[in-house]
Amino acid sequence: MYVLVVGSMAFDSIETPHGRADRVLGGSAAYFALAAAFFAPVRIVGVVGEDFPEEHLTALSRSGVDLEGLQRAEGKTFFWHGRYHEDLNVRDTLEVQLNVLEDFVPRMPAGYEDTEYAFLGNMHPAAQLEVLSQLTQPRLVALDTMDHWIHENSGELRKVLERVETVVINDSEAYMLSGDHNIVRAARAIQRMGPRVVLIKRGEYGVFQFSDASTFVVPAYPLEEVLDPTGAGDSFAGAFMGCLAAGGGAGEDALRRAIVYGNVTASFTVEDFGPGRLISMARTEIDERYRRFVELTRFGE
Amino acid sequence: MYVLVVGSMAFDSIETPHGRADRVLGGSAAYFALAAAFFAPVRIVGVVGEDFPEEHLTALSRSGVDLEGLQRAEGKTFFWHGRYHEDLNVRDTLEVQLNVLEDFVPRMPAGYEDTEYAFLGNMHPAAQLEVLSQLTQPRLVALDTMDHWIHENSGELRKVLERVETVVINDSEAYMLSGDHNIVRAARAIQRMGPRVVLIKRGEYGVFQFSDASTFVVPAYPLEEVLDPTGAGDSFAGAFMGCLAAGGGAGEDALRRAIVYGNVTASFTVEDFGPGRLISMARTEIDERYRRFVELTRFGE
Repeated sequence: MYVLVVGSMAFDSIETPHGRADRVLGGSAAYFALAAAFFAPVRIVGVVGEDFPEEHLTALSRSGVDLEGLQRAEGKTFFWHGRYHEDLNVRDTLEVQLNVLEDFVPRMPAGYEDTEYAFLGNMHPAAQLEVLSQLTQPRLVALDTMDHWIHENSGELRKVLERVETVVINDSEAYMLSGDHNIVRAARAIQRMGPRVVLIKRGEYGVFQFSDASTFVVPAYPLEEVLDPTGAGDSFAGAFMGCLAAGGGAGEDALRRAIVYGNVTASFTVEDFGPGRLISMARTEIDERYRRFVELTRFGE
Repeated sequence: MYVLVVGSMAFDSIETPHGRADRVLGGSAAYFALAAAFFAPVRIVGVVGEDFPEEHLTALSRSGVDLEGLQRAEGKTFFWHGRYHEDLNVRDTLEVQLNVLEDFVPRMPAGYEDTEYAFLGNMHPAAQLEVLSQLTQPRLVALDTMDHWIHENSGELRKVLERVETVVINDSEAYMLSGDHNIVRAARAIQRMGPRVVLIKRGEYGVFQFSDASTFVVPAYPLEEVLDPTGAGDSFAGAFMGCLAAGGGAGEDALRRAIVYGNVTASFTVEDFGPGRLISMARTEIDERYRRFVELTRFGE
């Protein structure tokens, strides 16, 4: 089963206490696609500028990402420059250049409409709704969003929320969206807005999943070296969705396995600047770390 | 097997976004003892003032806490007044009156010296060392500490660390003590100071355990109502130590079970102001929540 992602493609300049990287491949769609491609074939809907290098397209293609939905527009690629604190959970955005993303209208190539698994990456809710309305047989559609849209476009965001199956969101944004600082109540409140499954990402603390059927709480994979947290959330979402698309199910056991695979895949992303690890590593490394994660977390009943 | 705790006995005045409580029973030794007593008989070494009411002593005795080592000194009981933020992980201390704690010298009653399981609650490292040196057959001694001692008495703290088996410490204090903001490296650095097992408490995010034998990471029990986080860490430590003392072992499986029992017991503490839940509830409630926690965290291998 294909997974479709609509989201940003970017150049990122990143500073952390451990170093810096300039104009590396970034964006929610890039991280999502590279992570999902370990599990299932991926379709990207997005936009890059004239300055976007062939090597990045080649890396995506080679990983199993279909680029027919990736528009190349006149102008420059979206650019983000951020700096992380000593506490890597905190970051400041130093510069944003929307560039070609400013006038981006998602266009689905013929044949993309019947994709059953789709991820609406963080973007204007109107664009998310546009993509959603073009899907003819959505089976599992998940959505991410951020503070900006919660504050500035809450009406449109609510409309998309009514129509998606799953939300994948940061804890701080879950608190903002729900107006509640307790994770269980926040998840319940967001669920009332529409989604059957609410997945709250807690950064280095793991993931909290809430649905009518069950609640699941799992820590993140503990790492000795975190060089750059950028893209961890989108890598999580990518592996999560890819895993579900590959398995073809969305029962509780499949959901939990997909969440742990998301967790484990994201743990590779943060070990290097940019998405380098996602491009260079093998699927067997993910499976090995999954087994190690079982050992790190099991306890007697 | 008995568990011995040396620590503070207090009156706490607590303000949270959900209400307030004035001069309730508090202190590390009180929370620790009440939690540990669900699993094993407990001995307290501590001090209270003339104003300390009989009802608190009765509550402790009835729970299975031996009070022979609890001195009653002239003057007032230690008093703490704190206020929690909307984010309950953050709190401000509004007032501290050391009172009888100022001149407290731990005194072990005859018969206490052979206690094999002991917890050196957060206090001056010299006092911790004093108690430690009186134990004739320590099997598992754990230590807690806080920013004040890390900054002001690091030399003496290092001496105690060289001699204890286990450290139970908050994440922020682990970062401070190790000078490293990564949880794995921080635990490793603290281990090099002496303790075989390093337990790092992450508040609502759970616990991280590090030893030569293994690493264990576990989330906290997710709660819909957290009224007052005071005493959660000491309740964790109490149930953890009590569980180990009752089981008589400290192998990896026993350690992990004890950590989860600590987690689960602490989840009751925070559901009410002060230690009320620890006094009123039954052991069966802990076992029931342990089983529920297994369901909340299990996933396929």
